[in-house]
Amino acid sequence: MRKIAVFNNESVDGYFSGPEGDLTWAYQGSDDAEFNAFIANNASRGNGGALLFGRVTFEMMASYWPTPMAQEQNPVVAKGMNSMTKYVVSHTLEKATWENSKILKGDLVTEVRKLKQESGPDIAILGSGSIVAPLVQAGLIDEIQIVLNPVVLGKGRTMFTGLDESLVLKLIEAKTFRNGKVFLRYQPATA
Amino acid sequence: MRKIAVFNNESVDGYFSGPEGDLTWAYQGSDDAEFNAFIANNASRGNGGALLFGRVTFEMMASYWPTPMAQEQNPVVAKGMNSMTKYVVSHTLEKATWENSKILKGDLVTEVRKLKQESGPDIAILGSGSIVAPLVQAGLIDEIQIVLNPVVLGKGRTMFTGLDESLVLKLIEAKTFRNGKVFLRYQPATA
Repeated sequence: MRKIAVFNNESVDGYFSGPEGDLTWAYQGSDDAEFNAFIANNASRGNGGALLFGRVTFEMMASYWPTPMAQEQNPVVAKGMNSMTKYVVSHTLEKATWENSKILKGDLVTEVRKLKQESGPDIAILGSGSIVAPLVQAGLIDEIQIVLNPVVLGKGRTMFTGLDESLVLKLIEAKTFRNGKVFLRYQPATA
Repeated sequence: MRKIAVFNNESVDGYFSGPEGDLTWAYQGSDDAEFNAFIANNASRGNGGALLFGRVTFEMMASYWPTPMAQEQNPVVAKGMNSMTKYVVSHTLEKATWENSKILKGDLVTEVRKLKQESGPDIAILGSGSIVAPLVQAGLIDEIQIVLNPVVLGKGRTMFTGLDESLVLKLIEAKTFRNGKVFLRYQPATA
């Protein structure tokens, strides 16, 4: 069965997205070579892997990664993002022009349960706060990976909005970097 | 100048207090001897120290620690809590019957600034979500200590509610325990 991992940045007060969707805070400290190498290696563990998005995050990513701007700013990441298989769960999206994208139009939990049973690489969820809670509750998330950033935002969105009961986790890994970020890897305790 | 440290538990989604003020999740994993010893030692670094509370946390604590129940359940902690100097910031509280308590009736920031300049032991804030943000913004908090618990609550309160701009922190210490808790010690980056 394919594994699904959520990977997101978080502030010390638990937000994965700041006021008005601000993400600039998560890019601070990006001059730490050890951190960069660790994150790149972590991402490539699902090498040739697939990505799963909610519509909002998908459209944001699709408006950037295929562009010449992304080619110039982040050629390596852009190549990876464009070549990977991307799934987007949406009832409203008509078509996805970003290469290697597939729209899943049915019920979120049903579609993702089917996806896990198909053969294929493991799947990472980036951003996509609206789909994390229902997938966690359905027991379809195998791992939650968080980069805890040394900042308090005061306002923002948590990626677990809508979770209607608490979820006990098991800490698998914690790694501290010189830039003050802490990488945390959890599994649901019931897994 | 006396230092002020905030010490609180947090869930992975950033809450220091769960739905309806639930704190039971923070007491999970209390069978980890190394964790217990570390936390006890951390608390005693401000040995004979003082505590600072908002009214709600103060009244909750005052209704428990002086009681025979606390004597029986937690004799060592109860002795410490009862003998330490406690400050509670409140415009409405008429009197504080908990031994060694003082009510600060004036403006929060003014009172705490004065407190820091008096001689005396360092001060810890426990709970008290309503006073953290204004004190952080006034530059009166020297350290933020968090025990990050391996649980997602889905709903709750963050201890930084009301902070109206983001606060960059410096990670001073991170320590992982077998019970899955991670102790994090931060200072404001501007300190």
